[in-house]
Amino acid sequence: MHGVVGATPLEMAGLWSVMVIAILALLYAAFLARQVLAWDKGTARMQEISAAISEGANAYLRRQFRAIVSLIVVLVVAVYLTAVTQPDISIRLGRAGAFLMGSLFSAAVGYLGMNMAVQGNVRVASAARTSFHEALRISYRAGTVTGMLTDGLGLLGGTLIFILYGPNAPEVLLGFGFGGTLLALFMRVGGGIYTKAADVGADLVGKVEQGVPEDDPRNAAVVADLVGDNVGDCAGMAADIFESYEVTMVSALILGLLLSPRGGPIDLRWIIFPLLVRGIGVVSSIIGTYAVAWWPVGEDAFKAMDLSYDLSSVISTVSFGLLAYFYVHDMRVFFSTAAGILLAVGFNKYTGYFTHPSRTPVKRIAEASQTGAATLLLRGLAVGMESSVWALVIIALTIVASILIYGSDPNPVFVLYGIAMAGIGMLTHTGNNVSMDVFGPISDNAQGITEMADLEPRARQIMADLDSVGNTTKAITKGIAIASAVLAATSLFGAFTHHAGIHTEGAFTLQVFDIADPRVFVAVLLGGAIPFLFSSLAILAVGRAASLVVVEVRRQFRIPGLMEGKVKPDYGRVVDIVTAAAQKELVSLALIAILSPVVIGLLLGMHALGGFLAGTIVTGQLLAVFLANTGGAWDNAKKLIEDGLYGGKGSPAHACAVIGDTVGDPLKDTAGPALNPMIKVVNLVSLLVLPVIMIDEGRLTAWKVVVALVCLAFIVWAIMRSKREQIIELEEQPIGVPAGGK
Amino acid sequence: MHGVVGATPLEMAGLWSVMVIAILALLYAAFLARQVLAWDKGTARMQEISAAISEGANAYLRRQFRAIVSLIVVLVVAVYLTAVTQPDISIRLGRAGAFLMGSLFSAAVGYLGMNMAVQGNVRVASAARTSFHEALRISYRAGTVTGMLTDGLGLLGGTLIFILYGPNAPEVLLGFGFGGTLLALFMRVGGGIYTKAADVGADLVGKVEQGVPEDDPRNAAVVADLVGDNVGDCAGMAADIFESYEVTMVSALILGLLLSPRGGPIDLRWIIFPLLVRGIGVVSSIIGTYAVAWWPVGEDAFKAMDLSYDLSSVISTVSFGLLAYFYVHDMRVFFSTAAGILLAVGFNKYTGYFTHPSRTPVKRIAEASQTGAATLLLRGLAVGMESSVWALVIIALTIVASILIYGSDPNPVFVLYGIAMAGIGMLTHTGNNVSMDVFGPISDNAQGITEMADLEPRARQIMADLDSVGNTTKAITKGIAIASAVLAATSLFGAFTHHAGIHTEGAFTLQVFDIADPRVFVAVLLGGAIPFLFSSLAILAVGRAASLVVVEVRRQFRIPGLMEGKVKPDYGRVVDIVTAAAQKELVSLALIAILSPVVIGLLLGMHALGGFLAGTIVTGQLLAVFLANTGGAWDNAKKLIEDGLYGGKGSPAHACAVIGDTVGDPLKDTAGPALNPMIKVVNLVSLLVLPVIMIDEGRLTAWKVVVALVCLAFIVWAIMRSKREQIIELEEQPIGVPAGGK
Repeated sequence: MHGVVGATPLEMAGLWSVMVIAILALLYAAFLARQVLAWDKGTARMQEISAAISEGANAYLRRQFRAIVSLIVVLVVAVYLTAVTQPDISIRLGRAGAFLMGSLFSAAVGYLGMNMAVQGNVRVASAARTSFHEALRISYRAGTVTGMLTDGLGLLGGTLIFILYGPNAPEVLLGFGFGGTLLALFMRVGGGIYTKAADVGADLVGKVEQGVPEDDPRNAAVVADLVGDNVGDCAGMAADIFESYEVTMVSALILGLLLSPRGGPIDLRWIIFPLLVRGIGVVSSIIGTYAVAWWPVGEDAFKAMDLSYDLSSVISTVSFGLLAYFYVHDMRVFFSTAAGILLAVGFNKYTGYFTHPSRTPVKRIAEASQTGAATLLLRGLAVGMESSVWALVIIALTIVASILIYGSDPNPVFVLYGIAMAGIGMLTHTGNNVSMDVFGPISDNAQGITEMADLEPRARQIMADLDSVGNTTKAITKGIAIASAVLAATSLFGAFTHHAGIHTEGAFTLQVFDIADPRVFVAVLLGGAIPFLFSSLAILAVGRAASLVVVEVRRQFRIPGLMEGKVKPDYGRVVDIVTAAAQKELVSLALIAILSPVVIGLLLGMHALGGFLAGTIVTGQLLAVFLANTGGAWDNAKKLIEDGLYGGKGSPAHACAVIGDTVGDPLKDTAGPALNPMIKVVNLVSLLVLPVIMIDEGRLTAWKVVVALVCLAFIVWAIMRSKREQIIELEEQPIGVPAGGK
Repeated sequence: MHGVVGATPLEMAGLWSVMVIAILALLYAAFLARQVLAWDKGTARMQEISAAISEGANAYLRRQFRAIVSLIVVLVVAVYLTAVTQPDISIRLGRAGAFLMGSLFSAAVGYLGMNMAVQGNVRVASAARTSFHEALRISYRAGTVTGMLTDGLGLLGGTLIFILYGPNAPEVLLGFGFGGTLLALFMRVGGGIYTKAADVGADLVGKVEQGVPEDDPRNAAVVADLVGDNVGDCAGMAADIFESYEVTMVSALILGLLLSPRGGPIDLRWIIFPLLVRGIGVVSSIIGTYAVAWWPVGEDAFKAMDLSYDLSSVISTVSFGLLAYFYVHDMRVFFSTAAGILLAVGFNKYTGYFTHPSRTPVKRIAEASQTGAATLLLRGLAVGMESSVWALVIIALTIVASILIYGSDPNPVFVLYGIAMAGIGMLTHTGNNVSMDVFGPISDNAQGITEMADLEPRARQIMADLDSVGNTTKAITKGIAIASAVLAATSLFGAFTHHAGIHTEGAFTLQVFDIADPRVFVAVLLGGAIPFLFSSLAILAVGRAASLVVVEVRRQFRIPGLMEGKVKPDYGRVVDIVTAAAQKELVSLALIAILSPVVIGLLLGMHALGGFLAGTIVTGQLLAVFLANTGGAWDNAKKLIEDGLYGGKGSPAHACAVIGDTVGDPLKDTAGPALNPMIKVVNLVSLLVLPVIMIDEGRLTAWKVVVALVCLAFIVWAIMRSKREQIIELEEQPIGVPAGGK
């Protein structure tokens, strides 16, 4: 360990105050949690439902952590080994320890956030019996707990590592980033499969076959469905955003250190500035989120959150400008950060355009229901494809902005640093974003509880309104998560290419990744294929798990007395089935993301690995947005019809829209969001294994071939395993039979 | 003009014999055409139907050529201007002339091939009244006419340009390639929109709403549907394969010339070998295709074609080996060519696995119909995504093979040359492939005629059998077309990067396209987005055109007496509507492909343009295979159910499968196939405009910004135009109303 050398007392004070802010955020989270938990839990029936959800959600996460713990242990050793070329053992240990810390923090954000949501929803439902404002306050504050955990733990980890390791921090931060991202991948994939398998299964039998309404207590999958909202939208999304928050910081710090001349004194401004920006962001998020309950906007919950976001933005932007001017003495960093904030705004508008029910694209999808399900589906696919193009253009413009801001600087690293700072800027108000996002599943669950516990109409209306606001805020956060993922991946890619420069020679020489080199080009192609493979397996996994749910729910519906409400369904069994099914898929998908860059790097070399990363980022981004927005647009087209268009609920148009929505569910909530952490796992693994690839001066030696072939064998095994289980399951429980006997 | 300098008499004799073979292929086509046309045209009713199809098809192509003629004129001038830096006016004129020749040849292949099919189908139907063998012989030979046109014209143009221009041939060949590819893009996009709009429109009203069978003469869209098979599968596919055939040759010749040391004498072996390979391929195709009618395989049409293909392959492979050994004295060129033939075989097997009804993926899709349309659709999407991954792996292995074969050579161009030779090898038996492919729509139409003219059951059974073989052969050709497109694009990309090397300096210096450069990286992202934009617009275009057909067919079904067969529907009106609708979209889509590389090259520079190409190839390939195979798999899942599985026709499972098939139609027959020529248009435009981009030493000057902004404005206009018309059309004819009133 080296610590921070050459910092002025003021800079040290700044660093420590960032630490203090991080801890403050955690304390604020604890304070809000107490506020929420102090609220009344409602009737016995409400508490009973809430207990079932809580039990299911915790069972799921316990099982998930058990499933991955052995992989984490193996990886701690592997991460230690990737640092084997580092002479200093404290760095090796630090990297392995940081990996563990990153995964623990990511898991903690998911776990605590989910628990807060699960504890919160019954209290929100109970608050809805009092007044709209109380319900909004409780649900938003329960969400803010997760937001503050994300902010606090992310900032704490990064700053701590920097204070401890100083110039060697990048080597250790890589481990921290990888741990957080890997856990996020698990949470996203597992949660995504869980939530959609439960949802699709519940709908297919309940709504479509038996004609019972959504959230009907006779449906055995209804608790699993509510649990799914928590593990997918809450634990999954929180871990995902935590990971983006962390990784943008890691890449900004790595690139910031690269800005100083090799061997010369380190210019601390470029590292301390992003940390201070983050610190300021947390403070403005605290102010903004606390203000939500106090805006005089009547019952317009979305407006209250939006005004709070604006308040936070104003505080932050002004502070960033002052900081850039008085501390960094370079306004370019301010422009980059502001570009990120602008990108967030641009992305909100853009996501809104393509997926909001009141805008042309979704209206046209709904209209296409008039000529059948096929035309509705086709138009949705077309809208999703087009939307992915514009998302990419917006991101490309942000990168171009960085080229314009820093292009005249002789040091090429500045452009990449600018991109990383745009990522930092974009995630400045992670506190607000996560609060708005987690508010979604909490309201959704609370609404489910008001339905199942049959509360008074006024309370149900309040929750229905808040739930619909939650759908919009969830969509916005998803857009932010994707955009920030691309910026983070791009700056990680920049860090990779520059890291390669450091590792190859003693002195600093930049490596060139020439796409005209056939080896690099092949790797670009293969990298581009990975997101397709990943999405394919994720979609199949949902289908498989959902078919198990269908079989079980059908079985329970045939139990005498259940339809009449005399016999209670066995909710727990469905929860168990989905939990087990989701776990099975986790390891396969994670292995593909972890091992494929190792194989490419060892067999085709470091330059090819650079190409592989570029390919993964391009198609990963396009597919992620395509999948998310296609699904989102179908979902809202269905809502539009349910609100009375083209005959409303029960019309042929509605039947078409339901098909679209069901197809869209795994796209938008499983495959699409899982691509975010996947892209970054691939990037971080590449950065970690780079020194290992460079052993033997990058030549292809026997041991490399052996290791690569072993990894390849694992990948093939992972793919085959996925497929094999699927066949066995389908043969054991022929899903055609109950349908035919219906 | 320089002519071929330094060729031995034997080499000159070889070149001239290639010319002779090319002319021979054309004469053989004429001979076969006479044979086919000599056959009896059947009953008056049959001739009447055939005349309607012929009229519709010709009206379509006439209108298409009229729509694009002004664009071609503008482009002849533009192509001339791209050669403005060439001091020799004969090269400038040659490039413009070659562009015109390339487009004429491509149009001729499409036009003549389609006419042959249209003339052939009624004769095939009539032959089916005689015997199976006659029907097979006539239909396959009618297809072979197009195959031989493709071979003959492709070989003629390329060889002629090489003989005339010698070392300057690449500059002129670029024009030839661009002309052929652009026309293919038009044929593919226009034909694809036409065929699917007619098909979807006919099915939605006829089969789904009114419950009349396929090809029922009361359906006003039935002739348009049959015309569509000709303009899409026949004219479109033929022009597409012609273009691949041509472009692989262009890139092999460009790279072959680059193999000689700069300024030194040209080593003609590397240029003459690919031409001789092509010549041999044509001869073995003639032998093979002629043999189809003579195999003793009973009534197994597919086996007869397969044996012919094997015969051609054996003749070619042996000849290639001898040629490499005795003429080139370098067996590596043989290995590359053989790798291409292997790739063709591998691709056939692979396409078969993912889309054939008897294999697991399609069976599972059909099985998913048991839990509804949504699960069937999801499984199809997953299968398509996975299949695109393996297609890419197969292609990547071919590139790796080239790296292994040539990797030890100090001249890096050899690896690229190897990739181009693999492309040449893959398309060796274009004659057989096109024959097998065009056989598809001919049998399909002939079957339609037997249905509509109500022929004897035996004739109808024969045509049903041949039609089902045609579906398989069409799918195989589609796979070959996609794989060859990627190889052609990759070697064009190689030609681009090396061309850039020549252009920048007087001497030969290789340019480096560094993905780590943010400008290049942004361009990779943007290039990756183009295929998504293109597919989105193509899918929307089909939907728009189909909705117009739906409205018209519904209107005609309401005419009193039509349903009872007393009044004949107005087939011509539907043909007119689809023709007009398809034309509208052509120019917009072509402008995006032509202008986007110009904008990138001018604004971000040559290196970024290289990145742009790489991005387009990656996502273009993945999307093309994904779209083609998803659609193909759904189509065959439907067939599986229609053959009696899960309740057969009319069952709920069948209804689900029909939705899948309808969604898949525009994916597999419009958007997917159009991506092949699109990728190559982008590549060829980049090669053509490269010298213009390099003016002012590649710096961004005022005129470049102006030109780029004008191009950008055209792109935006093209996209907006597409969208504007859509809204007007929908408002004029509210498609919701007739549905509601039904």
